Amino acid sequence: MIIVLKPGVSKKQETTVLREIRNLGYRPHVMRGVARTVIGAIGDELTHQSLETLVTLFPQTVESVMPVQKRYKFVSREAHLDDSTIKVREHVIGGKKLHVMAGPCSVESEKQLLTTAEAVKAAGATILRGGAFKPRTSPYEFQGLGVKGLKLLAKARRETGLAVITELLSEAHAGIIAEYADIIQIGARNAQNFQLLIAAAKTGKPILLKRGLSMKIEEWLLAGEYILANENSNLMFCERGIRTFETYTRNTLDLSTIPIIKRESHCPIVIDPSQGAGRADLVTAMCKGAVAMGADALLIEVHPNPAEAWSDGPQQLSLEVFAKLMRELHPFILASGRE
Amino acid sequence: MIIVLKPGVSKKQETTVLREIRNLGYRPHVMRGVARTVIGAIGDELTHQSLETLVTLFPQTVESVMPVQKRYKFVSREAHLDDSTIKVREHVIGGKKLHVMAGPCSVESEKQLLTTAEAVKAAGATILRGGAFKPRTSPYEFQGLGVKGLKLLAKARRETGLAVITELLSEAHAGIIAEYADIIQIGARNAQNFQLLIAAAKTGKPILLKRGLSMKIEEWLLAGEYILANENSNLMFCERGIRTFETYTRNTLDLSTIPIIKRESHCPIVIDPSQGAGRADLVTAMCKGAVAMGADALLIEVHPNPAEAWSDGPQQLSLEVFAKLMRELHPFILASGRE
Amino acid sequence: MIIVLKPGVSKKQETTVLREIRNLGYRPHVMRGVARTVIGAIGDELTHQSLETLVTLFPQTVESVMPVQKRYKFVSREAHLDDSTIKVREHVIGGKKLHVMAGPCSVESEKQLLTTAEAVKAAGATILRGGAFKPRTSPYEFQGLGVKGLKLLAKARRETGLAVITELLSEAHAGIIAEYADIIQIGARNAQNFQLLIAAAKTGKPILLKRGLSMKIEEWLLAGEYILANENSNLMFCERGIRTFETYTRNTLDLSTIPIIKRESHCPIVIDPSQGAGRADLVTAMCKGAVAMGADALLIEVHPNPAEAWSDGPQQLSLEVFAKLMRELHPFILASGRE
Amino acid sequence: MIIVLKPGVSKKQETTVLREIRNLGYRPHVMRGVARTVIGAIGDELTHQSLETLVTLFPQTVESVMPVQKRYKFVSREAHLDDSTIKVREHVIGGKKLHVMAGPCSVESEKQLLTTAEAVKAAGATILRGGAFKPRTSPYEFQGLGVKGLKLLAKARRETGLAVITELLSEAHAGIIAEYADIIQIGARNAQNFQLLIAAAKTGKPILLKRGLSMKIEEWLLAGEYILANENSNLMFCERGIRTFETYTRNTLDLSTIPIIKRESHCPIVIDPSQGAGRADLVTAMCKGAVAMGADALLIEVHPNPAEAWSDGPQQLSLEVFAKLMRELHPFILASGRE
Repeated sequence: MIIVLKPGVSKKQETTVLREIRNLGYRPHVMRGVARTVIGAIGDELTHQSLETLVTLFPQTVESVMPVQKRYKFVSREAHLDDSTIKVREHVIGGKKLHVMAGPCSVESEKQLLTTAEAVKAAGATILRGGAFKPRTSPYEFQGLGVKGLKLLAKARRETGLAVITELLSEAHAGIIAEYADIIQIGARNAQNFQLLIAAAKTGKPILLKRGLSMKIEEWLLAGEYILANENSNLMFCERGIRTFETYTRNTLDLSTIPIIKRESHCPIVIDPSQGAGRADLVTAMCKGAVAMGADALLIEVHPNPAEAWSDGPQQLSLEVFAKLMRELHPFILASGRE
Repeated sequence: MIIVLKPGVSKKQETTVLREIRNLGYRPHVMRGVARTVIGAIGDELTHQSLETLVTLFPQTVESVMPVQKRYKFVSREAHLDDSTIKVREHVIGGKKLHVMAGPCSVESEKQLLTTAEAVKAAGATILRGGAFKPRTSPYEFQGLGVKGLKLLAKARRETGLAVITELLSEAHAGIIAEYADIIQIGARNAQNFQLLIAAAKTGKPILLKRGLSMKIEEWLLAGEYILANENSNLMFCERGIRTFETYTRNTLDLSTIPIIKRESHCPIVIDPSQGAGRADLVTAMCKGAVAMGADALLIEVHPNPAEAWSDGPQQLSLEVFAKLMRELHPFILASGRE
Repeated sequence: MIIVLKPGVSKKQETTVLREIRNLGYRPHVMRGVARTVIGAIGDELTHQSLETLVTLFPQTVESVMPVQKRYKFVSREAHLDDSTIKVREHVIGGKKLHVMAGPCSVESEKQLLTTAEAVKAAGATILRGGAFKPRTSPYEFQGLGVKGLKLLAKARRETGLAVITELLSEAHAGIIAEYADIIQIGARNAQNFQLLIAAAKTGKPILLKRGLSMKIEEWLLAGEYILANENSNLMFCERGIRTFETYTRNTLDLSTIPIIKRESHCPIVIDPSQGAGRADLVTAMCKGAVAMGADALLIEVHPNPAEAWSDGPQQLSLEVFAKLMRELHPFILASGRE
Repeated sequence: MIIVLKPGVSKKQETTVLREIRNLGYRPHVMRGVARTVIGAIGDELTHQSLETLVTLFPQTVESVMPVQKRYKFVSREAHLDDSTIKVREHVIGGKKLHVMAGPCSVESEKQLLTTAEAVKAAGATILRGGAFKPRTSPYEFQGLGVKGLKLLAKARRETGLAVITELLSEAHAGIIAEYADIIQIGARNAQNFQLLIAAAKTGKPILLKRGLSMKIEEWLLAGEYILANENSNLMFCERGIRTFETYTRNTLDLSTIPIIKRESHCPIVIDPSQGAGRADLVTAMCKGAVAMGADALLIEVHPNPAEAWSDGPQQLSLEVFAKLMRELHPFILASGRE
């Protein structure tokens, strides 16, 4: 920790602060600068108490306190220099192959799901997405088919060979979701629902952790740390747009997360342009950008008839548009050195 | 729903859109404007499917779709013209008396809690706050005393007569929290954890629902709707600051929520300036503003020794500063016509 | 400056960084911590080059660089311990009396302006606001009456004795605005138009500097520094709402700026709830909050017939509502120890 | 305009609103829905007054008012179905060739500028960027070489054949900048400095309009409308990152602006990843994304020695990194069908 003192602090005030720093378990180191005195407090910030309270305790003396250590360990690139890969059935995410996870926002019926599954498989997707339990802003909106939806996902997997990703939104469902899903998705609204993160981690299944609507990168990495610290190393991060002042799009898809997650962490990064834009007409361009920037996988909403979708219709691609997207992505996948 | 067509749409394109509107259960009503044709789709938006997908389905024809109905019912002022009041033991929140809920961020020990409880009671608080289960950004931070913390809260209630508010952060804890708490707090990070909202509502206990870090007013009201729609009418909203680009404060406390919630809803509004600012030195001024603007209650973090607090030290007031705050608030309480 | 090195940096890498720090004019001071080595670079940050480029220059070695000095001087509380006051004709802003600046968004006609001026004076305002040159988002919106508007403001001043505040939006107008205005307003969109700030400062007139739509407190103080560094000490800051994700209000009025500006600076702070909310029905509550929190003045839009205003109708108060507001503010002014 | 009435409005209240709508020059058209009555107000919104004030005028009757027309004309895709191209010396921006504008943040010296110019030309850039007048957050930071900088840019153009882009930040400089620059840049902080936009437009030179730090797409398009409405059709938009809550990067580069500007407007779109990220180590990935998504040009900061740059060192690329970037971009340029 670095403690910056106010200008003109007396010797006595300084001594009081130094004593408190020692009390809290750090060894203080004083540097006298031109305009201000700065104290380096030496000690492990992860195991000691934060010194940020010194600002409150000594408002006349202490101007600011700055941490120097990173707060995350297991998710950090320092902890694992190579890229991590995640095995999902016969697939490897985070390796040379770009994966596409595609399917409807919500599982609505056998016909809707199987039609979609066959079409996305034919177009090149390897993983089927589909919500069985849906978190909805309003209690009056469709909340998902529940276990019936999970069974339909399993059926689609049997018939197409696609792996399955679906969302977990209640600790109480962790067992049943783990039974059916190949990847467990944690949604943006639950990204700091730490009890849910722990429950998901304990299933041992691969976890896709979406970024919360207003989550800083550091907080996202720390939420991921809850997964790894609970002995599940199969974590991928998924950017799905952050909330900004802009109203043209539903969210602002932050593609800079691709090089940032690659720099700070060893875990794969997945991009969800459907949630990110909230508009189907922007999805193709965003997928191209994501691939060029090095995303490990894409998560795309596809529906046989978006206009009649039971949720999030405006952002779902039709089967034809999805097939066209996959063809258009091809040169960018090659340009980025992927398969 | 209002559907705005693009300029220069053909008769045939228009007919196709009108047919789809009827398919989806609405009666279309065409208005030809100077620059654009607008279609009013008549039908109950809460029970029919959204027409927003028309933008996707007919990208060449439909420019935009705008809802006209409000999405919330039970929390709305229209549903309940008078202010709601909430009975918490012998206290009434939302009535003429301003209530102050005060106490430490986390329950740490019997001594810490009882000292605080006695001091805040002496200064005029009626409700004791204290976290027993703590949601922490990092898995390496103190996660709360758990049930032991709840028992200490109960002891403090017995000894001081203060009512108790504490946070619920797992569906699995709903029963035990309801056993000990007079008010159940839903934290900002769980404000759209709908399963938790339902579990909290079903306890029948009064609920304090904090605004999520990047929650729009409409979403907050809809989250509240989950409480009322699950047959618990004892809901209060709590503003605790939103996330903005500003870094001087931890959050930006949005005091305009006071008149807005009063206008849109009948439920009481509580202000939490401790989380809102994240700095003890701003709390007093913010409390004054909140009282003047008509807040029904304040939620304030107070600790006997903020510098040694196990969580959020920089935003907790010392006992002395809290007592001084309560004295300084007095003229503003009177000026606002409260007790 | 504090330079944090990455873990596992070699002696040679460290030496290279130390050499560059010396090159750039600082004296390095090494502290070896538990997890990382930290270098304090001693030297005056305001006169030396920033060391932030070390991150770029030595990406394998340097993790982050943090400044320790504040970047503003003349506006800071440290530079001037007492509150500054500003003389505007016979009035003093920043002293014991709360001032109210009121009037229409745009000057539209003699009748509109004089009617408003008389009414706001009768209700207790001391300063008349009115835009003669208007910055408008669209080129097709009313751009103000220009010099004719300034002449009407002068006439209103002669007839009512109110002082006049009006906006400067072009360097080319600095002379003519200074001739007519008692206070020059710099609008939010021009808050970092540094050439305009310099031109305004050089007139010697009192300046009201609005906060930009997404301006951090530090940037706002530094924009104010442009005024004081150009030898004009008559500066007041004006909070008018920042841009956030919320769409219920036009902006989010950040009332925490009142205690923050009082803490960081000696200059008066003015609150503009009309721009802040963009809705007339929220203005009264926000004025009460601003007064309770210690604002030195309020800036309020008032129009004899808001529905027919040529700009920003939805946020302007009618004369009757303004008079009622002034009566309702009275107890809060007394409670805050003002006149 | 669409006017939504509150539920339960009386016939008399409705009549009053209808009368006011006619007064303001629109023809009202009433639609009675299931839950609410909606009025379509028919008339040209661009030439009539906004009806948004009806919310203020009839707070008991009118719930909300929504515009249906777009506020921009000349910049809109509807006004000009084909992509516009801009001729800059022998180059065409907005056509098949991707252009790269590169050079130092600030012009510092002849040697610095010429070295950079030669290197970026050799690597494939066609336009040289360099600030001669610099807008700086603090008055104590380097403000640019002024006219001397312009002369150095002209010299670099003579020696390398590169075209020149430089920033205009004062109306007073419009003449001199137009004399030296091939493209005039309007910076983010001046994006709604409408007097400056008009002064720039009137020079007749191509204009690159950066997006303001918190500018909505609609506002950006309207700022562009100031250029076209002042008879200068040589406009390009430049995304350079918006301000969000994230602090890892200086700004959040919003690459979704590429498909959005292509959809809403006919003007070229340029991406500035240097300002967008504020970190040199993210620039390469962002350029790849921008190219894949269809950007017409890139604007990149390059410096022979970023660590000693007089401004914005952390975001400038060295000559070597820039040359490498240009090589790595090549396959993505081909994949996107560009040259």
